[in-house]
Amino acid sequence: MNTGIEAQIPDISDVHLAHARIRQQLRITPVLSDPLLDEAMRCRLYCKCENLQRTGAFKFRGACNAIASLREDGIAGDVATHSSGNHGAALALAAHLDGRTAHVVMPEDSSRMKIEAVKKYGGQVHFCAPTNDSRAEELQKLVQAGLLPIHPYDDARIIAGQGTSALELEQEVPTLDQVITPLGGGGLVSGTAIVARDWGVDVFCVEPEGAADTVASLQQGEIIKRFTPDTIADGLRAIVGVRNFLVIRNEVSRVLTVSDNDIRDSMILFWQKLKMLIEPSAATVIAAVRNHPEIFEGKKVGAVISGGNIHPADWLTLTRPATR
Amino acid sequence: MNTGIEAQIPDISDVHLAHARIRQQLRITPVLSDPLLDEAMRCRLYCKCENLQRTGAFKFRGACNAIASLREDGIAGDVATHSSGNHGAALALAAHLDGRTAHVVMPEDSSRMKIEAVKKYGGQVHFCAPTNDSRAEELQKLVQAGLLPIHPYDDARIIAGQGTSALELEQEVPTLDQVITPLGGGGLVSGTAIVARDWGVDVFCVEPEGAADTVASLQQGEIIKRFTPDTIADGLRAIVGVRNFLVIRNEVSRVLTVSDNDIRDSMILFWQKLKMLIEPSAATVIAAVRNHPEIFEGKKVGAVISGGNIHPADWLTLTRPATR
Repeated sequence: MNTGIEAQIPDISDVHLAHARIRQQLRITPVLSDPLLDEAMRCRLYCKCENLQRTGAFKFRGACNAIASLREDGIAGDVATHSSGNHGAALALAAHLDGRTAHVVMPEDSSRMKIEAVKKYGGQVHFCAPTNDSRAEELQKLVQAGLLPIHPYDDARIIAGQGTSALELEQEVPTLDQVITPLGGGGLVSGTAIVARDWGVDVFCVEPEGAADTVASLQQGEIIKRFTPDTIADGLRAIVGVRNFLVIRNEVSRVLTVSDNDIRDSMILFWQKLKMLIEPSAATVIAAVRNHPEIFEGKKVGAVISGGNIHPADWLTLTRPATR
Repeated sequence: MNTGIEAQIPDISDVHLAHARIRQQLRITPVLSDPLLDEAMRCRLYCKCENLQRTGAFKFRGACNAIASLREDGIAGDVATHSSGNHGAALALAAHLDGRTAHVVMPEDSSRMKIEAVKKYGGQVHFCAPTNDSRAEELQKLVQAGLLPIHPYDDARIIAGQGTSALELEQEVPTLDQVITPLGGGGLVSGTAIVARDWGVDVFCVEPEGAADTVASLQQGEIIKRFTPDTIADGLRAIVGVRNFLVIRNEVSRVLTVSDNDIRDSMILFWQKLKMLIEPSAATVIAAVRNHPEIFEGKKVGAVISGGNIHPADWLTLTRPATR
């Protein structure tokens, strides 16, 4: 019995509280649909465009909620996290807006654009070797020095914050049949699943084939700790969190997987139909809906488009047929 | 006295009728703002994202209204227009959705992407030499063969349709001080000005320095017919229309101009802050607001972001410093 951990999983009232706490700082992101996209997808797709969220990803929701919770609880001080991507930038901005500094442990091989994003929003970068152990050690040092740790996904405040996107989707399109999100560490899908249970819609999530650690963990009945991801979806390489795993096991209808080539095709389709560049992680949901007509055909599907942080040059390189 | 033409300029009730007529086919585009963009702009900017409109540009509004007006009037038949860009694609889709075919006269040096867009939406392309005379002749042939002409901007149905974007902006942010749009042939700004007069906000528009025919025409007191544009803003190379010129002269506070380098910088700024690629024509409004703090500083400004039809490779080429 993990009663300790289970008590730390937020419920729907926590997501409502989170939304009330952070909505002034958020962008209420648009829900976009397109009849020609629907034709290609064989369903009615409602895209919740978190690629247009502040900092370019849904991660700003959780980061804001974590910081606002600290403030509510009267806890002063700077924060620390590890992230190779969007969580770092999101926490940097959320902390900055509250007069704090976020210290972000990043692998030394992180993309220049993501390092720059953390700095741009006022965060301080601490480099480490590109291994899980090195990352944990470096973060531990910062926490021992007195910084407040904020885990990128295995944290009740983060999960509740990420769930606010589904809350807005419910308010805007209450008649959906299903909701689908990408799955990396599980912050977004677990927050979404908490909302979906209350709302009464089925929730699905998607891992890249090269980072399908959660599918393997579900089969094994416990979290696989050692896993070497290999996928272009750089936002989905993390190992699923403990709280997140519990929510997924209990609430998610099915964890789907997609190939990198399907992801590439979906990035192109999204650009053709909705005129936006999205990062590979975000395109996984498009790919999964296309691949699974037996689940989605003819349905009203809410797809959380998780982020748009990709340089146009990288988008071109990834989607160019010659590179396949 | 141009009483004939003046009678063909729509008023606010025409814009309301247009919106009622086309709203089922439109995407109600989001209005996005960003505090960090506001800091850079020294005003509060509300971006009406017509780059996310169907076909990737506001042009779909006018085209839809023209087609729906034909249907209302019981006029059957295919339509014809000339366009090197977004109007052609928009009319192709609007006609297709009504069971018609749009015949689009395009200069033979049009970009491949824009030719493909017309075809993709079901339009038929007719190539002509890249001169105004050749374009007019080719269109004349199609009209003599029985097709219904729909001018890209000098047309009351088109003007009323383009005004619906400002109508939605008014509904979403009624407290704006000012609205600004790009200016090519004048369809968007004249529709917007009709709404702005009723709403009680000041309206501005922007021409590229290399296509500032309207500024010259205003100085001269009549439309200059011969003009050779030279700008990266390919959507703004047209000569202002007769109806459009009358509205601009009467209703627009000031026509501003921006350089191609300012346009490039604004494309980059927009991508950094709002994570979207917009075409050069759309970036003119950002550039103009940045250049004119004496007009916009501290104000609440609505900016119509006219279109996002640019291939990522072309965006990169245009914004790369080495190409300047």
